[in-house]
Amino acid sequence: MSTTAMFPPGQKLPNDQFTGDAFLSPLVSRDKNNDFTVGSLIYEPKTRSYWHSHPKGQILIILEGEGLYQEKGKPIRTLKKGDVVIAPENTPHWHGASATNKMVDIAITNYKGDDQATWLQPVTDEEYDSVQ
Amino acid sequence: MSTTAMFPPGQKLPNDQFTGDAFLSPLVSRDKNNDFTVGSLIYEPKTRSYWHSHPKGQILIILEGEGLYQEKGKPIRTLKKGDVVIAPENTPHWHGASATNKMVDIAITNYKGDDQATWLQPVTDEEYDSVQ
Repeated sequence: MSTTAMFPPGQKLPNDQFTGDAFLSPLVSRDKNNDFTVGSLIYEPKTRSYWHSHPKGQILIILEGEGLYQEKGKPIRTLKKGDVVIAPENTPHWHGASATNKMVDIAITNYKGDDQATWLQPVTDEEYDSVQ
Repeated sequence: MSTTAMFPPGQKLPNDQFTGDAFLSPLVSRDKNNDFTVGSLIYEPKTRSYWHSHPKGQILIILEGEGLYQEKGKPIRTLKKGDVVIAPENTPHWHGASATNKMVDIAITNYKGDDQATWLQPVTDEEYDSVQ
């Protein structure tokens, strides 16, 4: 695993959408060609998003570390460098770092109209700790 | 720079579009939410694309190594880990590795209808060697 930071650390994401310390470095803004945003995110260990959904889905590409991803009603999936997640539309899910490692990923988030995400409730410790 | 291969090496790209050895590992296919493809590319040193254009542009995110990017009529831009290129639509350009390093990048390539690229002539040694 590279120890060189790839992108600037970015801005801390709000704690009404993320539990713990997650940081976003925006890479690409929406424009006439690109109907999505691209950003790099760093999740400190144990940090995870709230449950949320995307009206037109999201792609995650894991660059470093160890992560977790879960869609409602499915088992937690573990993620490592090089893994790709294609989150479907309107599907509640969460993603974050493992309990012992940070995770760095690139997120490509599509727009539907002007909407990118609907935020739901936090991931409880019981939900987070249920990883196999 | 990480020495761990992030993605499988992928398939060699054709020499009527790339000069030298470039390899594509497809990560995301076009589907109803994602009107683009995402792939990871490895360019061996001195390897570069032909001149080409994209009808709805392309995004490159440099993961490793050292690269070059040039739009027609502009100076060659050098690229390093963490750099992002937003190639505009219908603009002849090329990209590749430097003479001494490989480059690894992620490419997000939009569709316009069913088209992603128009291929043009090779980048000559004189053009390639004109990097400052």
